[in-house]
Parts: sequence; C-alpha cells; structure tokens
Amino acid sequence: MNRQAIGVFDSGVGGLTVVRELIKHMPNEEIIYFGDTARVPYGAKSKETVTKYARQIVNFLLTKDVKAVVIACGTVSSNSYYDLMAAFDVPIIEMVSHGVSMCLDVTQNNTIGVIGTEATIRSRAYEYLIKQKRPEAQVFARSCPLFVPLAEEGWTSNTVAQMTTELYLQELIDRKIDSLILGCTHYPLLLECIQRAVGGIHIINPAEAAAAFIARFLREHGLERDYTTAPEHTFFVSDNTNKFDRICRLVLGNAYPSQTVDIERY
Amino acid sequence: MNRQAIGVFDSGVGGLTVVRELIKHMPNEEIIYFGDTARVPYGAKSKETVTKYARQIVNFLLTKDVKAVVIACGTVSSNSYYDLMAAFDVPIIEMVSHGVSMCLDVTQNNTIGVIGTEATIRSRAYEYLIKQKRPEAQVFARSCPLFVPLAEEGWTSNTVAQMTTELYLQELIDRKIDSLILGCTHYPLLLECIQRAVGGIHIINPAEAAAAFIARFLREHGLERDYTTAPEHTFFVSDNTNKFDRICRLVLGNAYPSQTVDIERY
Repeated sequence: MNRQAIGVFDSGVGGLTVVRELIKHMPNEEIIYFGDTARVPYGAKSKETVTKYARQIVNFLLTKDVKAVVIACGTVSSNSYYDLMAAFDVPIIEMVSHGVSMCLDVTQNNTIGVIGTEATIRSRAYEYLIKQKRPEAQVFARSCPLFVPLAEEGWTSNTVAQMTTELYLQELIDRKIDSLILGCTHYPLLLECIQRAVGGIHIINPAEAAAAFIARFLREHGLERDYTTAPEHTFFVSDNTNKFDRICRLVLGNAYPSQTVDIERY
Repeated sequence: MNRQAIGVFDSGVGGLTVVRELIKHMPNEEIIYFGDTARVPYGAKSKETVTKYARQIVNFLLTKDVKAVVIACGTVSSNSYYDLMAAFDVPIIEMVSHGVSMCLDVTQNNTIGVIGTEATIRSRAYEYLIKQKRPEAQVFARSCPLFVPLAEEGWTSNTVAQMTTELYLQELIDRKIDSLILGCTHYPLLLECIQRAVGGIHIINPAEAAAAFIARFLREHGLERDYTTAPEHTFFVSDNTNKFDRICRLVLGNAYPSQTVDIERY
C-alpha cells in the first residue's frame, strides 16, 4: 500500500504549471510542493548557487518521505540534475529530456528554438541533448530574462508583454525554426503572447511529456498511490505566502494555503 | 588616524549608483561594498526575509571593521532600518530620510510621487516620513516591479522600457505631482525614460542627499579617513561575479574585480 507523495519543487510559482500537468495525468497522486519564493529568481544565478539551493530543497522534501522528486524548474533541470542524481538515492525527474523527446517527435525541418532563463541557456543542456539524439538538428537558443518578471507582474497579454516577446523571438523566427521549447516553467503563463508572436510554429511545454513519463514510471515501479481517499496536496514556500497563494489559485483553480519553511536550515 | 572603510550594501548592482555618489562627495574614503547577487531582488520579499538577509550582511561588513554602514538598498532602508539600528552599534545610514528632505526642499505644490519596489511601497516609509514632516503634503506611491529586471537586462532606453515607464507613471502624473522620489537604487539607471515620461517634474535621487549627509557625519565625528594614499575600494558579492563586474565598470567607469562570499554563514 503506497501513500507516499510526489515531491515537486521550483524557484517560485512557475512550477505550478507543472503541478497542473501532474494532477491532470495522475489525479490520485498526492503532491508536496516547495517554491523558493525567498530566493526567486534562479535564472541569473550561477550553477553553484542554483545547485546548493536545490540540494537544500531536496533535503527538505526527503524529510516529508516523498517517493520521487520532480524538478519543475528549468534552471535547476538544466544545471543541477546530474549533481542531484549523484547526491541522492530518491528517483529524480527533470524537464529537459522530456522536452527534447516531445520536440523531436514534432519537428519536420529539425530546426529547433529553445528559450529559457540565462542560466538554462548558458548550460546548453537542451542543445547537447538534441544534438546527441539527432546530430543533424540545428538548435537556436535565446534567454528571455524579462519573461519571469512579466509573468510575476501579471503582464501576460498587454502591449509590453507582446512587444517584449517579439523582440526576444524575432531572431528565432528568422532562423526558420518549426518548433519552440519553453525551457522555463513560467513561460506557459505567457502562452498567448508567444503563440501570437510565432504563428504556426509548434510550442513545446516539457511539463506535458514529463507528467506522462512520471505516471508511467510510478506504474512500472509499483509506486502508484493506492489509497482511494482524495489526495491532499501540500504547498511550502520560503517566504511570504500571500502572492503565492493568489497565483496558486489562478493556476490550479483551487485554494491551497501554503506554509513557510526556513530553507537555509536544510 | 582613521583608516577604516565605509561599508555599503545593496541587494545587487543597484547600490553602485550610491557608491558613485559617495565617491563624488568623498573621494578620499575607502568603500567596502556587498551586493547580494545570489538573492536579488529583494523587492518582492517579505519584511522578515529582507531584515534577516540585511542582518547577515551587516554581520559580514563588521568583520571588515567598517566605521559606518550605508544601506544603499531602498527596500532594506524602508523595511529594516529600525531593526538594524536596534541590533547593531555601528552608525547606520539609510536612504529614505535623505530622499524626503531633498524632496521637501524642492516641491512647490506639496504633491509628491514615490516609486519603489513592492516591499518599499508596502512599507509606506516614505509616506509616513513626509506626512510627519509636512502634514499638508499629499503623497502618491506606486511600485514598479519591472524596473529592476529592465535595468538588469540593460533595456534602459528602448521602446519596452519607455512604454513600461509610461504605464507605471501615468497615474502619478495625472495626480499633478511636481516631484518624484526614486525609492530604489536601480531606478537612476532608467533616468532617461523616466525624465521623458514625467517632463518637467523634479526627479529626486535620495543617494545625492545621503552622500552629502555622510560626508558631514564623518567630518563631525572625526571619522574621516586621513590617509593620503589613494583609497582602495573592495567589492564582495554572494554569487557569480562576471555580471556584477561588467555593470560595476559601466556605473563607476573603473574595473574593481569582486570576490564571492558565502553570506548565509553570517
């Protein structure tokens, strides 16, 4: 009888778009979420700092006896996955490889765009993996540092958001990409602007493929939650909860009051 | 014979605009600067978290035997000044009171605008102090959460920056303010856009008045550095130094390679 929860973490609220996919694919699973709202954003930080923060968070999630840890955050997925894998025994699931598989399934011209935070793009994690799986592919990557603050400000479809999106994406469109990977969990919140800017180009949200993978993984390893009571999700943050709770309600359509944790202690 | 340095800290690079003023007013003083580039920005964090971070930083600066601590950061100045004053014996200088004095000297119609981060505006520190010194004044305050990321992205004079500035400031202009306090150290970097948006309204940079005050304070307390050798400034950050060093060169017109500190240990 398994009653362990799935641990999910992110630099802040962005990972809620991943939780939304997880709930859609695994409505019976319980989720324990941690959002590092005190130290958000991760996108401009060094690999060392991001990895140090991520290790503290996994340590915290393990005190909650989670059966797997999902790295919702694109910056941690692309910078710290191998370090975390080496440091912990719990199954750890990242976003990059799932985004890549999904993208390689749809691209026709093997010309792929990747957008993410500065740290994600600097890591070249998407590029390396695409080239490894399909050496003939061409990858054009671009960091979009203003997307996270725009999403956090709630400016997801006004003129400033649209103009910023066009400024960032024009060079990728000029390269004739036919698919675009959203390498940051915040970016699905700007979907409307991105869709308008790129027209018919396929937009890939890695969280969709990752959620399908996790459902299969739990099934194959006999780790599915086999309680029939409704799952109770729990949300932790490292700073004030008001803003998080408000965005949580918007993204998940449900109120889950969050609790504060002193994450530097882990 | 005084050879102690002045400690200055900020959430990141913004405080360099304060350092620029300090050097202008006190070319013979030595500065030890700390920028919390790992945990930037402070503007969306709670008072508790900002104060905790600020205490760690003052602890660190005291290990360098500084003779005074300048809170360059608007968010810390407005949220944590009294807590820091109570916790430490070293003279601590904030920005708010100096911005207010400067503004009350120039306003003709006592209708004042204040812009800053969410945490600065939420603290109402500027408002309280203006009302205390001049009860008949009217204060209109507005947080501008995208200004810091725009400045960090280097988008300080393009169309997105201009449009964002106009969206944020229009309601203050409509209120007929005749002076506008820049309550965040990053905002002087967007001066061009702000000036264009507000026309003839007086723009107040609290760092100018604070620097003049500090020069006077050191003189009156016999704390001026009386070495005639050229001062050597030192810069510490909590995360990667590249971006900091680049912006430091831009703002101060000089290369000062920074060193990394594990600030959570203090």
